[in-house]
Amino acid sequence: MFIAMNRFKVKSGNEAEFEEVWKTRDSFLGEVPGFLGFHLLKGASADEHTLYSSHSTWDDQTSFENWTRSESFRKAHSGASSRKGLYLDHPQFEGFEVVI
Amino acid sequence: MFIAMNRFKVKSGNEAEFEEVWKTRDSFLGEVPGFLGFHLLKGASADEHTLYSSHSTWDDQTSFENWTRSESFRKAHSGASSRKGLYLDHPQFEGFEVVI
Repeated sequence: MFIAMNRFKVKSGNEAEFEEVWKTRDSFLGEVPGFLGFHLLKGASADEHTLYSSHSTWDDQTSFENWTRSESFRKAHSGASSRKGLYLDHPQFEGFEVVI
Repeated sequence: MFIAMNRFKVKSGNEAEFEEVWKTRDSFLGEVPGFLGFHLLKGASADEHTLYSSHSTWDDQTSFENWTRSESFRKAHSGASSRKGLYLDHPQFEGFEVVI
């Protein structure tokens, strides 16, 4: 199993708008081979931002990587550039292999 | 739902020993109220370390915090100090509320 996380430092005050984007988006993930599940996670707040992370679970890393090269991925991220103002820096990707 | 993660920078070369510690430990988690599941995750490697993260899932943050004050927690972490040599720095805790 493989877990893909993308960390976002959302500017303070933008939290509700950021969550709404994720709640209302069409992820096109339902029929993607090897996809198991998705969560949006809210972490700690600092002076200027709140940490969020997307959290998707896959059969294996190959399934995730195939998705990133797919038409479903392109469609799900087509509006991403317009949302850059909501967070500091670039999102930071981390992929994890499930060992236990 | 709540996800508790503890990030470890395991010194290069210590990966197998670190994984073995987790595979053979007695977590005492089975009967803890609100506990849902546990994984050990292996992330990216850098020059001097490999990132690992524990990943436990809970009904809510209160269940997790109750566990950290319990006898089960104390027993599960009783050998932790002897394993400090396996990783750089202190483990870094991050807790996440599941928003979606």
